[in-house]
Amino acid sequence: MKTTKTMNQPKISDKFWRRYMDVVRNEVIPYQWEALNDRIEGAAPSHAIENFRIAAGEAEGEYHGFVFQDSDVAKWIEAVAYSLATDPNPELEETADELIALIGKAQQDDGYLNTYFTIKEPEARWTNLRDQHELYCAGHMMEAAVAYYEVTGKRELLDIMSRFADYIDTVFGEEAGKIQGYDGHQEIELALVKLYEATGNEKYLNLSKFFIEERGRQPHFFDQESEARGDKKPFWYYGSYRYSQSHLPVREQKEAAGHSVRAVYMYSAMADLAAKTGDESLVEACKTLWENVTNKQMYVTAGIGSSEFGEAFSFNYDLPNDTSYTETCASIGLVFWAQRMLNLDKHAKYADVMERALYNGTISGMDLNGKKFFYVNPLEVWPKACIRHDKRHVKPERQKWFSCACCPPNLARLIASIGRYIYTQHDDELFVNLYMGNEAEFALNRQTVKLVQRTEYPWDETISLTVSPEGDCEFTLALRIPGWCRKAYLKVNGEYVDLEDITSNGYAYVKRVWQAGDQVELVLTMPVERIKAHPNVRENAGKTALQRGPVVYCIEEVDNGVNLPNIFLPENAVFNARFEPALLDGVTVITADAERLNDSEWGESLYRPIDKNQYQSFKLTAIPYYAWCNREPGEMLVWINEK
Amino acid sequence: MKTTKTMNQPKISDKFWRRYMDVVRNEVIPYQWEALNDRIEGAAPSHAIENFRIAAGEAEGEYHGFVFQDSDVAKWIEAVAYSLATDPNPELEETADELIALIGKAQQDDGYLNTYFTIKEPEARWTNLRDQHELYCAGHMMEAAVAYYEVTGKRELLDIMSRFADYIDTVFGEEAGKIQGYDGHQEIELALVKLYEATGNEKYLNLSKFFIEERGRQPHFFDQESEARGDKKPFWYYGSYRYSQSHLPVREQKEAAGHSVRAVYMYSAMADLAAKTGDESLVEACKTLWENVTNKQMYVTAGIGSSEFGEAFSFNYDLPNDTSYTETCASIGLVFWAQRMLNLDKHAKYADVMERALYNGTISGMDLNGKKFFYVNPLEVWPKACIRHDKRHVKPERQKWFSCACCPPNLARLIASIGRYIYTQHDDELFVNLYMGNEAEFALNRQTVKLVQRTEYPWDETISLTVSPEGDCEFTLALRIPGWCRKAYLKVNGEYVDLEDITSNGYAYVKRVWQAGDQVELVLTMPVERIKAHPNVRENAGKTALQRGPVVYCIEEVDNGVNLPNIFLPENAVFNARFEPALLDGVTVITADAERLNDSEWGESLYRPIDKNQYQSFKLTAIPYYAWCNREPGEMLVWINEK
Repeated sequence: MKTTKTMNQPKISDKFWRRYMDVVRNEVIPYQWEALNDRIEGAAPSHAIENFRIAAGEAEGEYHGFVFQDSDVAKWIEAVAYSLATDPNPELEETADELIALIGKAQQDDGYLNTYFTIKEPEARWTNLRDQHELYCAGHMMEAAVAYYEVTGKRELLDIMSRFADYIDTVFGEEAGKIQGYDGHQEIELALVKLYEATGNEKYLNLSKFFIEERGRQPHFFDQESEARGDKKPFWYYGSYRYSQSHLPVREQKEAAGHSVRAVYMYSAMADLAAKTGDESLVEACKTLWENVTNKQMYVTAGIGSSEFGEAFSFNYDLPNDTSYTETCASIGLVFWAQRMLNLDKHAKYADVMERALYNGTISGMDLNGKKFFYVNPLEVWPKACIRHDKRHVKPERQKWFSCACCPPNLARLIASIGRYIYTQHDDELFVNLYMGNEAEFALNRQTVKLVQRTEYPWDETISLTVSPEGDCEFTLALRIPGWCRKAYLKVNGEYVDLEDITSNGYAYVKRVWQAGDQVELVLTMPVERIKAHPNVRENAGKTALQRGPVVYCIEEVDNGVNLPNIFLPENAVFNARFEPALLDGVTVITADAERLNDSEWGESLYRPIDKNQYQSFKLTAIPYYAWCNREPGEMLVWINEK
Repeated sequence: MKTTKTMNQPKISDKFWRRYMDVVRNEVIPYQWEALNDRIEGAAPSHAIENFRIAAGEAEGEYHGFVFQDSDVAKWIEAVAYSLATDPNPELEETADELIALIGKAQQDDGYLNTYFTIKEPEARWTNLRDQHELYCAGHMMEAAVAYYEVTGKRELLDIMSRFADYIDTVFGEEAGKIQGYDGHQEIELALVKLYEATGNEKYLNLSKFFIEERGRQPHFFDQESEARGDKKPFWYYGSYRYSQSHLPVREQKEAAGHSVRAVYMYSAMADLAAKTGDESLVEACKTLWENVTNKQMYVTAGIGSSEFGEAFSFNYDLPNDTSYTETCASIGLVFWAQRMLNLDKHAKYADVMERALYNGTISGMDLNGKKFFYVNPLEVWPKACIRHDKRHVKPERQKWFSCACCPPNLARLIASIGRYIYTQHDDELFVNLYMGNEAEFALNRQTVKLVQRTEYPWDETISLTVSPEGDCEFTLALRIPGWCRKAYLKVNGEYVDLEDITSNGYAYVKRVWQAGDQVELVLTMPVERIKAHPNVRENAGKTALQRGPVVYCIEEVDNGVNLPNIFLPENAVFNARFEPALLDGVTVITADAERLNDSEWGESLYRPIDKNQYQSFKLTAIPYYAWCNREPGEMLVWINEK
């Protein structure tokens, strides 16, 4: 057992996120390990580890599970790695080491690694990239390998995946005799960039570039491939490769389309490649897609993918609240993409969306104890209506586990690595994207600079930063002024700084010669805001959502009784926000005097001519959206009727 | 060629309905005849007549079409019969006679008649009642036979179907050796009552009663039947026979469930049997189901069946506007049921619903020219959203024809027989349920009484009736005071009558000794009404529908521009109603000063903190719902946002 090497990942002291990290460490990771090993009573066996044992020759048997079952193992290792970075755990590390040794044994002599094809269809390798997730699984294992190497310094999995990548590079490429193709589920593209960064081997960067450039070209690879298989059926998604964003070359895609997780994984890789290569047309393509997603196809919770069919984007402004798909993984992918856009473009709007996703549409996917999960994150739930065939994807309560268990481990790896999303560095400019208690170190102007953030964010308005270079050191601290914040105050060493003068594209640029112990205090005022949706979002006409700071609120039946659509928020409603430490592990609760349709004298009749509605006054209670369904299950609503 | 015998069916002079009858006569019936004979270019062949030719031995070939294709032929004959009653047409009658002769030849020696089983699966008769519509097709042909006999006096089809019914009676029944079963699609139950009325043969009444009583008993017939077939699959509709209302014995069904057309056909038969037999528990069952449907599961247009999956009822108060199924045929079936409830119970509420269906959710299924049809009648359409997988059943424009062509001929037979729904007679009480220009004769108190109605209904408030018995004659004229009408006036021979004194359960009972030429004038004031839905209908919280008289209104994009949900109706809106003879074949148009969200300064951002919406004033124009989509296609909305 070797000791864990801590990489440059901020140490999180933040109350809000530390709690989530502990949940991931203490609940999600151990539970998932049991699940991967088929030791959860009453749950359908995952068979994921057993598949590796069989492929490694250590067990006999058949392959079981989805064709992408290997990726569950990969995401687990990745989450473990991030967790070890902040919370060393020799026993867990040993378990991971043993698993990695097993993975090595399952690798074929030529470098190939995929238990489905090794066990079940060895002759069918690379014959159905469109549907079989071969490169997708490879990508997730590469991400795991890089994370594990970065955190522990151990190269074993990195070497395994480098060998696999080397082999893949002999199979795919522009050169004659190679397959001019790509995977039906993007993932390897961003993973290869990470592998390049970890190894310095440019071959991997070029292979990623090849996959991205090849995508959507005519004649279409998936057509050629299915013709070769003798498969004549039209593709199930409206006969269109929009599903996998291969309907057009990537630069010609102006609107987000198709399976939303595939989409944001691809956009992430595009942003990576644009940052590494400086390719202006690719930068432009990323920005165009970003504007489309965030200004036309995103829920206020940063949920994306409004259509259950294909778990997909729908079209501009089509954002139904009660049938939305808004997969947890899609919001997670949006965080990945946002982080990469920040490397491309010094604009706080990317961090605004990243923050919106982190405090709302991602963590809503897990209960506060890390034991139950939502795959789908709707903005309006009427439990009774979930029996409807067209709403059967909407669950009124989080589920213990899924047969397609993509979201829980994806959340685990996101939360375990939350520190990696706080800062972005461009030369001697340090951008603070997220506010949370942490300690971190940076190399700025040839010095090591220590930064300590203290805050009770997202509940409290004040963020204190202590900047400690080794000696006097000139650099720029660029503090994000969130898009949701209408009035911010900044003090440096006790002196107010006029934000207007120094703010550009959402960042306040504080350039000075810093000295050890310099104090920065940022106050982001957090009144309760009535949020309106763009008039083209017809679902939300006449409705308002409540937001305080980065947190989007909802109303629940447990606080407000049944029939939430009958609650109306008057135009002049006065809001009260108070922190309740005992509620939902500590949340700020919003209350307001609202009104509710008086149905007591209505009677039986379904329709009546009425000139004026009868209302009764009513005290509305709203809680953070992410924390819904942690008490009694019931109705939930984000967009509240106005009056 | 014999001459047409006119039965006691009122002669319609009404401008509104006469236009529809002419459309049916001149467009729908001839077009459908061409369709049944596969002579419509570009349309998938129906093969319905060809199936009869093959079964009759007059042609060679395979059966084509749905298993219930025969019923299209039946509904056509029925519509022809009703049309001949008011508009004799020797050529059309000859065509029908020839068709009936062909049907006779397709009948088997034992009386059996069904071209699917005769041609395709002769050995499989009566082996899959659940799915194969064998008795359903028989029922429709019985209805056709009765209608054709009543109108023309010709017995040929009546005899054919009596022979078939006699044969069915040897196959089904309580007695040992007979099948203790029933059809998966109710229809024969109500048809057998008609056959009983036309022939006086009580066997048919008893057979209908048997089918109704047997339904839903345990052990379940469909289970036994599928076991006998070796079919082990659970039934596709949630594994439940709710789909065909056979989940429980009929008296134990307290809420409408399952396929809505099946449901209302069955409820119609139940009401028929309750009226004929006086069975109190069956009367009660009918009333319970009626209250459930009309007070908990009906749209304001009298559309029923809110779920596309199973074309079915959903659950109480679940009435989404944009995904509703609300099949044209289901509203038609609701009219059938309402008519029969009027025979059971002297209450105008049944006629209220009948009228609501007739002026709204039924005729919306056809364009004004009788050339295009809606199968599905939603209350909110955003054409762009119809590409969504979960809204693919909602068509933004009427279609030329359907492969499952149930709705057009069903509308044809309803409209052609509209006169049959105007009056109900209980002994010497004549109930006027509907107001439309017509002349009719009744036997009241041993005299023939002629009644002439004149009105510009539904646009005008005044209805004039001339009552002409042969001599002085005492009887009661019971005039329906519609539920939508808040102030009515009645004059008899120029003298006001106090309605409050004589009105009970929605009917004004005018009992007197009538003399030839007596004049009755009824004024039903028709202000524009703001209709609200029950507070439990959460889809319509904060919304209002406009109704004037029996006509429900909608707003269309062609009059109001795009993005209809952004239109808000102020609480104090003043409505103007004016008849426009040139518009949509003559409709009363409603206008009002409304407001519309001002989106001109919104910009790109999808969400913004805004305390107060910006509105601009806007002239709203509403047209009758039934007439929507007769100009440029576009958005449509019934439930308008309030402010």
